[in-house]
Amino acid sequence: MKPSERIRAVAFDAYGTLFDVYSVGALAEQLFPGKGEALTALWRLKQIEYSFLRTLSGRYRPFLEITEDGLVYSAKKLGLALNDAQRRQLMNQYACLSPFPENLGALKALRALGLPMAVLSNGTPQMLDVAIKSAGMSGLFDHVLSVDAVRQYKTADAAYQLGPDAFGVPAKEILFVSSNGWDAAGATWFGYTTFWINRAQLPMEELGVTPTAVGQRLTDIVEFVQARCAPAAGR
Amino acid sequence: MKPSERIRAVAFDAYGTLFDVYSVGALAEQLFPGKGEALTALWRLKQIEYSFLRTLSGRYRPFLEITEDGLVYSAKKLGLALNDAQRRQLMNQYACLSPFPENLGALKALRALGLPMAVLSNGTPQMLDVAIKSAGMSGLFDHVLSVDAVRQYKTADAAYQLGPDAFGVPAKEILFVSSNGWDAAGATWFGYTTFWINRAQLPMEELGVTPTAVGQRLTDIVEFVQARCAPAAGR
Repeated sequence: MKPSERIRAVAFDAYGTLFDVYSVGALAEQLFPGKGEALTALWRLKQIEYSFLRTLSGRYRPFLEITEDGLVYSAKKLGLALNDAQRRQLMNQYACLSPFPENLGALKALRALGLPMAVLSNGTPQMLDVAIKSAGMSGLFDHVLSVDAVRQYKTADAAYQLGPDAFGVPAKEILFVSSNGWDAAGATWFGYTTFWINRAQLPMEELGVTPTAVGQRLTDIVEFVQARCAPAAGR
Repeated sequence: MKPSERIRAVAFDAYGTLFDVYSVGALAEQLFPGKGEALTALWRLKQIEYSFLRTLSGRYRPFLEITEDGLVYSAKKLGLALNDAQRRQLMNQYACLSPFPENLGALKALRALGLPMAVLSNGTPQMLDVAIKSAGMSGLFDHVLSVDAVRQYKTADAAYQLGPDAFGVPAKEILFVSSNGWDAAGATWFGYTTFWINRAQLPMEELGVTPTAVGQRLTDIVEFVQARCAPAAGR
């Protein structure tokens, strides 16, 4: 192992990576039969688009708000009469997204390697606290880092910089893990060693940058990290 | 008319506003029967997404490149085997997009009011030159402003600032015209007086900002401008 390949910490994206953003689909389908999948997909697209636009224009609003804004727009676009009760139901469901089934085991296996771990997410601290507890992941992370601290969403440098600052480790020695192709690309540009969990088997984004490694499940990173970490004592 | 409502210049977005980005659809359908519409829609989405991401991460590449990148990704995502000849054909078609039918008349009517006019676009200067000529719009604009000069895409402030700088007029006294809801929102945030040409009758973006006016066609802005401009002599 070259020193340049050493991994000393791991940072995880939350939405889409630890938590399944499409797990609201069942409720959406129940509320709007035949339209649940379309609503969930467009909701996610608009939420991300709004995070980009508000950062580009320096008009930050917390992720909970833009998530709700994305839901409201998507329902209108699809011609669905979303009432207040339905909106609250969907937002409550979003607060407690299901984790992907293999995630808890993968996180515990990584934890056993003795590496410090963090969540680095667009979500607000409160959203992340609730989601982590709800997914049974309490106590697994040394840091829960929210871009709310810098009021800029990924892929802005200020957002990614939270990782090196929290760990006191250069980005290159932190493995940044994301299921979102654009996030994996942004983190690679920033300087992280990156692992793209390509769950949906999508093509690589055409952004002229390649994540360090690609897999399909969170468990795929355990071996990758194992080969690159120096064991830490006393953890 | 309050002085604050006076319009002294007009700036137009190009792609989607002056030129119909979906006019490549016929060729796309011919090349990939049954998939033309899906390819054209996804291509546009990815092109815009890449403009956001590259600006957020400070990784500018010219619009011609990210347009081609968006095409390549979209074809892969849809499982279409896009060969080099087809890619060139679609890119050539993109260079000469059709204008919307009412546009030339609307631009000439505005020109007759004596207001200076500009294009303010993500496109490169060369892309804009070819597209303007091909659409029969040569000579109608006092300025053809490309964000290539500042290497940041809309909705970054630096991109919108090209308008006030070129006209020597504050943003508030420039009418910024766009068919893209996100662009109309960004320009309003920046400080322009804005007109959203909502051709597709989409819901308003949920970004907490409202364009000054909304219409469905470029001709709709003529009356709006007429009521707000002071006639200029010698034009």
